[in-house]
Amino acid sequence: MLGNSYDSQVCSIARALELVGERWTLLILRNALFAGSTRYGEFQRSLGIATNVLKDRLDGLVAAGIMDRRPLSEQPDLHEYVLSQKGRDFAPALIALTEWGDKWAAPDGAPILYRHATHGSAVTVEVHCAECGSLEDLIEVRALPGPGMPPDRAERITARLGMASTRAASA
Amino acid sequence: MLGNSYDSQVCSIARALELVGERWTLLILRNALFAGSTRYGEFQRSLGIATNVLKDRLDGLVAAGIMDRRPLSEQPDLHEYVLSQKGRDFAPALIALTEWGDKWAAPDGAPILYRHATHGSAVTVEVHCAECGSLEDLIEVRALPGPGMPPDRAERITARLGMASTRAASA
Repeated sequence: MLGNSYDSQVCSIARALELVGERWTLLILRNALFAGSTRYGEFQRSLGIATNVLKDRLDGLVAAGIMDRRPLSEQPDLHEYVLSQKGRDFAPALIALTEWGDKWAAPDGAPILYRHATHGSAVTVEVHCAECGSLEDLIEVRALPGPGMPPDRAERITARLGMASTRAASA
Repeated sequence: MLGNSYDSQVCSIARALELVGERWTLLILRNALFAGSTRYGEFQRSLGIATNVLKDRLDGLVAAGIMDRRPLSEQPDLHEYVLSQKGRDFAPALIALTEWGDKWAAPDGAPILYRHATHGSAVTVEVHCAECGSLEDLIEVRALPGPGMPPDRAERITARLGMASTRAASA
């Protein structure tokens, strides 16, 4: 458990990780998003995950509203696990994680290629500036306090950013 | 520990998570990437993280080649932690995680806004198809076996994808 200090992080990365920041959970999401898995047995076979762990993670995804559990029409005593919009929206984060792993932790080449079904063409993640379009160099990206940041913390962050730019300017 | 079964996942998401799949680690990376933090004390103050945990995570980032530890020129007995290219390349994944958290886990609005320093304009992540450009609907994205997938597993995945498309076509 990360405890109170982690819980106090006002940050959408922290909150995203509260919901999906467990590795099996991300691999279940990956198989649901990009391999079309919906059944317990499909996840179990493709991931080789212990059944109690799989059940726990699927229950967690349903509780978080990331998957819906529905009875199978042909076998209503069985269920399928179907991604909600909240689950489908996680795809860009998974593609971005894959790209980093492909570049930095895949000595034998990319194990998985994302392709657009319509054309078979490559699918990638781009960081986009509303003014400049696609950004290659992210060193110019800043994190500023937004509307969801409590005012006292927003002030501290702004002060720190001001100091940093002064320091950079005088360096 | 996730054990052998997890270790056997041939997947760049899994490998990325081996390196950075711990929540404090991601928050340290966030502060290094977007708040310009480089010193132990800066991470400690802004994250409120226990010192032994912080030391452990920074050591891990250095060991993974994501940060470099350098003596400070003005105080060579102190060090700063500077992102390597491998660390800087993690920015798109963090921005994508933030966007998902902003949309689905930030009832008070986004705590952090990513802005391009040059223009102050919004910075977002887009999923891009080499043929179609920006993709809104990711339901058409498929994960196919790449050059780094062992042949026996690639065959199984291809067979499963074939079954899935037959099932979809007959539904």
